[in-house]
Amino acid sequence: MQGQSQQQAYDRGITIFSPDGRLYQVEYAREAVKRGTASIGIRAEDGVVLAVDKRIRSPLMERSSVEKIHKADDHVGIASAGHVADARQLIDFARRRAQVNQLRYEEPIDVESLTKEITDHIQQYTQVGGARPFGVALIIGGINKHGEPRLFETDPSGTPYEWKALAVGADRGDIREYLEEHYHEDIDLDGAVGLALRSLGSVNESGLRPEGVGLATVDVETEQFRMLTDEEVEEYLVDLDLLASEDDDPDEADETDDEE
Amino acid sequence: MQGQSQQQAYDRGITIFSPDGRLYQVEYAREAVKRGTASIGIRAEDGVVLAVDKRIRSPLMERSSVEKIHKADDHVGIASAGHVADARQLIDFARRRAQVNQLRYEEPIDVESLTKEITDHIQQYTQVGGARPFGVALIIGGINKHGEPRLFETDPSGTPYEWKALAVGADRGDIREYLEEHYHEDIDLDGAVGLALRSLGSVNESGLRPEGVGLATVDVETEQFRMLTDEEVEEYLVDLDLLASEDDDPDEADETDDEE
Amino acid sequence: MQGQSQQQAYDRGITIFSPDGRLYQVEYAREAVKRGTASIGIRAEDGVVLAVDKRIRSPLMERSSVEKIHKADDHVGIASAGHVADARQLIDFARRRAQVNQLRYEEPIDVESLTKEITDHIQQYTQVGGARPFGVALIIGGINKHGEPRLFETDPSGTPYEWKALAVGADRGDIREYLEEHYHEDIDLDGAVGLALRSLGSVNESGLRPEGVGLATVDVETEQFRMLTDEEVEEYLVDLDLLASEDDDPDEADETDDEE
Amino acid sequence: MQGQSQQQAYDRGITIFSPDGRLYQVEYAREAVKRGTASIGIRAEDGVVLAVDKRIRSPLMERSSVEKIHKADDHVGIASAGHVADARQLIDFARRRAQVNQLRYEEPIDVESLTKEITDHIQQYTQVGGARPFGVALIIGGINKHGEPRLFETDPSGTPYEWKALAVGADRGDIREYLEEHYHEDIDLDGAVGLALRSLGSVNESGLRPEGVGLATVDVETEQFRMLTDEEVEEYLVDLDLLASEDDDPDEADETDDEE
Amino acid sequence: MQGQSQQQAYDRGITIFSPDGRLYQVEYAREAVKRGTASIGIRAEDGVVLAVDKRIRSPLMERSSVEKIHKADDHVGIASAGHVADARQLIDFARRRAQVNQLRYEEPIDVESLTKEITDHIQQYTQVGGARPFGVALIIGGINKHGEPRLFETDPSGTPYEWKALAVGADRGDIREYLEEHYHEDIDLDGAVGLALRSLGSVNESGLRPEGVGLATVDVETEQFRMLTDEEVEEYLVDLDLLASEDDDPDEADETDDEE
Amino acid sequence: MQGQSQQQAYDRGITIFSPDGRLYQVEYAREAVKRGTASIGIRAEDGVVLAVDKRIRSPLMERSSVEKIHKADDHVGIASAGHVADARQLIDFARRRAQVNQLRYEEPIDVESLTKEITDHIQQYTQVGGARPFGVALIIGGINKHGEPRLFETDPSGTPYEWKALAVGADRGDIREYLEEHYHEDIDLDGAVGLALRSLGSVNESGLRPEGVGLATVDVETEQFRMLTDEEVEEYLVDLDLLASEDDDPDEADETDDEE
Amino acid sequence: MQGQSQQQAYDRGITIFSPDGRLYQVEYAREAVKRGTASIGIRAEDGVVLAVDKRIRSPLMERSSVEKIHKADDHVGIASAGHVADARQLIDFARRRAQVNQLRYEEPIDVESLTKEITDHIQQYTQVGGARPFGVALIIGGINKHGEPRLFETDPSGTPYEWKALAVGADRGDIREYLEEHYHEDIDLDGAVGLALRSLGSVNESGLRPEGVGLATVDVETEQFRMLTDEEVEEYLVDLDLLASEDDDPDEADETDDEE
Repeated sequence: MQGQSQQQAYDRGITIFSPDGRLYQVEYAREAVKRGTASIGIRAEDGVVLAVDKRIRSPLMERSSVEKIHKADDHVGIASAGHVADARQLIDFARRRAQVNQLRYEEPIDVESLTKEITDHIQQYTQVGGARPFGVALIIGGINKHGEPRLFETDPSGTPYEWKALAVGADRGDIREYLEEHYHEDIDLDGAVGLALRSLGSVNESGLRPEGVGLATVDVETEQFRMLTDEEVEEYLVDLDLLASEDDDPDEADETDDEE
Repeated sequence: MQGQSQQQAYDRGITIFSPDGRLYQVEYAREAVKRGTASIGIRAEDGVVLAVDKRIRSPLMERSSVEKIHKADDHVGIASAGHVADARQLIDFARRRAQVNQLRYEEPIDVESLTKEITDHIQQYTQVGGARPFGVALIIGGINKHGEPRLFETDPSGTPYEWKALAVGADRGDIREYLEEHYHEDIDLDGAVGLALRSLGSVNESGLRPEGVGLATVDVETEQFRMLTDEEVEEYLVDLDLLASEDDDPDEADETDDEE
Repeated sequence: MQGQSQQQAYDRGITIFSPDGRLYQVEYAREAVKRGTASIGIRAEDGVVLAVDKRIRSPLMERSSVEKIHKADDHVGIASAGHVADARQLIDFARRRAQVNQLRYEEPIDVESLTKEITDHIQQYTQVGGARPFGVALIIGGINKHGEPRLFETDPSGTPYEWKALAVGADRGDIREYLEEHYHEDIDLDGAVGLALRSLGSVNESGLRPEGVGLATVDVETEQFRMLTDEEVEEYLVDLDLLASEDDDPDEADETDDEE
Repeated sequence: MQGQSQQQAYDRGITIFSPDGRLYQVEYAREAVKRGTASIGIRAEDGVVLAVDKRIRSPLMERSSVEKIHKADDHVGIASAGHVADARQLIDFARRRAQVNQLRYEEPIDVESLTKEITDHIQQYTQVGGARPFGVALIIGGINKHGEPRLFETDPSGTPYEWKALAVGADRGDIREYLEEHYHEDIDLDGAVGLALRSLGSVNESGLRPEGVGLATVDVETEQFRMLTDEEVEEYLVDLDLLASEDDDPDEADETDDEE
Repeated sequence: MQGQSQQQAYDRGITIFSPDGRLYQVEYAREAVKRGTASIGIRAEDGVVLAVDKRIRSPLMERSSVEKIHKADDHVGIASAGHVADARQLIDFARRRAQVNQLRYEEPIDVESLTKEITDHIQQYTQVGGARPFGVALIIGGINKHGEPRLFETDPSGTPYEWKALAVGADRGDIREYLEEHYHEDIDLDGAVGLALRSLGSVNESGLRPEGVGLATVDVETEQFRMLTDEEVEEYLVDLDLLASEDDDPDEADETDDEE
Repeated sequence: MQGQSQQQAYDRGITIFSPDGRLYQVEYAREAVKRGTASIGIRAEDGVVLAVDKRIRSPLMERSSVEKIHKADDHVGIASAGHVADARQLIDFARRRAQVNQLRYEEPIDVESLTKEITDHIQQYTQVGGARPFGVALIIGGINKHGEPRLFETDPSGTPYEWKALAVGADRGDIREYLEEHYHEDIDLDGAVGLALRSLGSVNESGLRPEGVGLATVDVETEQFRMLTDEEVEEYLVDLDLLASEDDDPDEADETDDEE
Repeated sequence: MQGQSQQQAYDRGITIFSPDGRLYQVEYAREAVKRGTASIGIRAEDGVVLAVDKRIRSPLMERSSVEKIHKADDHVGIASAGHVADARQLIDFARRRAQVNQLRYEEPIDVESLTKEITDHIQQYTQVGGARPFGVALIIGGINKHGEPRLFETDPSGTPYEWKALAVGADRGDIREYLEEHYHEDIDLDGAVGLALRSLGSVNESGLRPEGVGLATVDVETEQFRMLTDEEVEEYLVDLDLLASEDDDPDEADETDDEE
């Protein structure tokens, strides 16, 4: 009880530390991320894969409008988990930065530079008063100018991390365990797509449906972001024996990604 | 009790997250939407339909002044549910954006772009301090430059969704169920008008009156927003056997749409 | 008790929603309107009538200084109920907008446009922090450029309504019932003046005195706002058998319109 | 008890309404006016009279420095009651507006226009946050350009009233009753001076001293504001049999007008 | 108890009135003045005298650095009581205004005008949020352009008063009584110096030391502010039989004027 | 209990002192530093060493992305402990200042000047409202223009300290004790690297892994910041008998440096 | 208890007075000064001496980085006690003002003018909202343009004091007593150095170490600020029999000057 009422004293103003040096508002923004469905990123030798768990509230909703993977630039894709409206702001921010870089330096923005511009932007919302933190985590994947695949995460504190493979959002713990067990550094893009789907499948016991999965790649050859079609996804799911029958009721949509 | 008093701690400042990662002020703004009478949008192969439940407080009030469907541009209509004064601000915002686009690029604004400009505007009011969220949901329907009908929803968090058919406001759950059951993708505009009225009728047991219904279409041929006249609406209602007798007391007006 | 203390939590900051989606400060501003004496507007075929219940605190006060009907432009009059100082701000705002329109477009401002500029102004005070809502309702009556009489209401939320006949302020419920019973659409201006006085009389059992009534018209022929003289008002009252004897003590003045 | 604690919830922030539609800070500012000694204004056929009850804290204080009557322009005088430092701000504001009008239009400012500029200024302090209302009421008397005497009151809400005769500050109720009984519309300036002094005397049982009274006139002939000398005041007091003996202890000074 | 807790509700925000129309922060600023040692001003026929009670915390402190009398312009001196750092701000403000006046109009600033510019400045700090009132009272003495001595007080509310003789700070009540008893209007400057010292002595039973007294004059002949030397002060004290022996322990220094 | 509730009163607003003259928010920011893993700096005769304890949350995370040592300029390195996102802001600030100096004066920035620009920046966040302090400590090491190695610490209060050898973050007390015992002023760079690793080892009982250690030097000869490779680190660890076997589970990552 | 809870009501907002006219935040800032180790200033006939008690947290910390004496200009030195980061801001402010003066008037800044610019700066932080007061006291010593030594103190309220000899920080009371007993006005610089060390020694029973003392002079002949070397300090300590043996454990460092 004592602990609880003490905590309450420090968690409402974003610009203050608690006595043990924590920023509660940032931690609560992380909870908003966990309320979102899972997003996964995997770096292969020849590209990066982004895969997301898409829950559609109703068959009448256009699936594209709950898209959680976005093209930030020709060579960069971003997957998100958490508060959808916040994610859109950050993705717009990313696109504008990519365009400005192209205009100013006449070359594509570096994936790492882009990530750090985004995390700088996020950090400001955790230190200066008058606004709340962004309730979203991003997975940023792309190819840098040396033709190398890069994969980054941004978290609500504004810290960038680079990963070989990661998951954010709901079930992130289980998916990460699966990835740690099955990922190997010389995986190729095709294998990474498979791993991404299998890791998603590992937390969806009744299997996956093509319309419940978003999948995109950026490969080192074309350096182009590409969303996979439903048919391509379905092919993978069949091959991987992950295809759920159409009648199966997908799990209840999580609240943050598809808020009612 | 404990849960309740804890909730109270996080629901008053719009710029803070609760410990479980929720933004209460946005959720309360959604309640303001539910206080409004229902609005419906349906996308047909050859256009979009917007239909609304209009409650008139008094026979002395001009029906046009509680209009919940507005023309945003020649090719875009917007229906709203929730706090009326807020809706008017967003519709004005939409009109100005449409005009600016016409002036700047000499072409009509894209329906999806317009929606995203509106949701960006809405999101700002949920993150930056000094203002409250908008207590309104919009249904934005129109024809894009490829001649395709599009139908979007904006919610108080600033998230855009695309729909085949949707309802917002009071009775949204029941109406959506009705739509899910009866909607099919190859519906034509005339069929969509009928479906919209029947879904409205499904939650008005005593039937509908022409003056209690707003109905508009944007068809792919003319790409023109058009309000249907009372006579046209009445004809539909007679055909659909939904016409209430004039003596019938319509349900009590909901508070938010027509505040006293 | 519980309900009451919960309400208190949401009614003090104008920029927040209560858990059930209400804006308490706007609702309290509506209470300020109800504290004002009644104002009435009636639209006739050939003009609009504004009529108000004027309470004079003391025989030494100049009656003109508690005037609740104001000329906004040659062709537009405004009656108010509620917080007097707020009403004056909005009427000044209306006059400036009318002048700007005349200067910019060289034509009189449209009555509906004027109403919407006012309600946009009012809405801002309900969403952005640092100020309170306006505690006043206006009845705006005038002739549009097609020679048609129009009659609008603005409420503290910033919503415009168009009416055939309406009342705001104290006794608005009883007066509206009277109007609903006796109003017919083909009423002429002279009949509307009579109806306005009779509806006012219906809530003043001891009758009316010319100095306790404000009465103005805008007719479609001259398109000119005109205040009726005491003599004209008295003539109507005699004709309508509504004239109170001079000794009669008028009802206590309401607090908001004539604050001590 | 309940009522009291509820009231406390709404009376501290100037920009919020109480549940019954009141603005407590404005009402408390009216209390600051009542703490001031009385000021009186009377409009005669041929001019206006301003009279004030001046309490001097100490014989060492210069009487002119507690002057409550000020010349705003050649043809306008202002008497005040309430918070002295606030009164000076408003009187300075009035003088600047009068000067600006003279410079801009090359004619004296209209008394009514001046009053409304002042009340607009006062109203702003009751609606916009970050400041408190003015704790003062003014009586503004002067001659308009048609040679007519005008007499106005401004109250802390920012409402202007026109009067034939009025009192503000302490004892305003008793003095107004006296004025209502004795005022008649065809009173001349000399008679109005007498009435002002007699009404002041009616609430000072031990009589008045010239140095405890401020008296000024603006007459229609000269259109000039003029303070009466002590000798002139004394002459009136002798004539009216109101002169107190010099030993008489004047009543305790009120706190607001002459704060210690 | 009830009264006390009620008071607490209104005394913390400077921009709000209490229910009885008081501004508590201004009243508390007056308490800060009372915490300062006494300052006295006396207007003679041929000049003004400023005298202050200076308490030195330690023999090691330079007496000039606790000087409470300052030259504002050649012809104006200012004595202060209360919060020392605030006093310095106001005196700097006074000096800048005097310089600006000299530059702009090529003549010395009028003593009364200077006082009113200072009180306008002080008043702003009592009405507009974001700052506290000044915790200081000033005595402003000088010669106006007609060669007349003038003596003003500014208080924390921003009200100016003109005096023949006055005291502010600690013991102000006792000193004023002494002054009221012994002041006469035809006193000359030399007599006023004596009266000032005797009134200071009346509240210092053990007598005065030259280093514990500050004394300055502005005479009508030279129109020059002049600080008296210790020798001159001592001569006066000997003549007036007010000289304390050097061993005498001066009273404890008051906190506000010489804060530790 | 009493003490605790009193403390709570002063620790939430960064811009206020507690009654005993403490700034709690700054002290809590120091706690955020302690939550970070240890960082060490040692100044040798011929250069400076920076060494950090790097905890990787997952084998899938790129080690470089939890890098706690950064190059600020060719001749300056910075190690951090505490809130990672804050550290990145300060390091970016440092880099910009270094670039500006180079551009403006055409010479590398002085290490001490750079430190003081950073601490000035930090201090502002502890005094001016609207933001929280930085929750990070930096170790800044480099070579000044006279070829001398310099080593500074910045703390959350904005105070710079110069050290011969220091530790910040977790275990700082134990590491400092170790350093105090083993440091001698004529240590050379190679010896300092060894001391840094041994001091890190002193608080990691199971030994160190190359991938769990960050190590950088700036030597006086080249005046170049250089990160040591894993191979170089491993060589040192083997030589120092500090190498942990690969299976050893490193200690749990601390929360602030690698927030989940 | 009552008194304590009342105090709490007024000590958190810097811009408000308590009912007894105190500014608690300023008083708490004075407590921050007392938490710092002692600093001493003495004015001799031929110069000024600044002496400080320097506590080093660790033998590994560079003593120069806890320097509490700073050169503000060639002819002015400043010693500080209290919050170190705040002190650095004020010393930077002083240096900038000195430079600006040199550039603008081509002469060194006057010591008294410099002090008053600093105290004006400090006072602003005690009256205007949005920041806290500076938690530091400065001793400013130098030579003015007439070749006279001057010695000033600035306190957290923004009040300047001039002293012959003073102490601020911990033990200020005991040291001042010692100074009052032993200071005489015709002391020369060499004697003043001795007195400063002896007064420091009077509160350090185990004697002083050269590295625990900071000592600087500005003499009237060279008008140059000069820090004494450790050797010079040691020589004085030996002469004065104040030298502690090296093993002696110096007292625990005070928290504010050397915050952990």
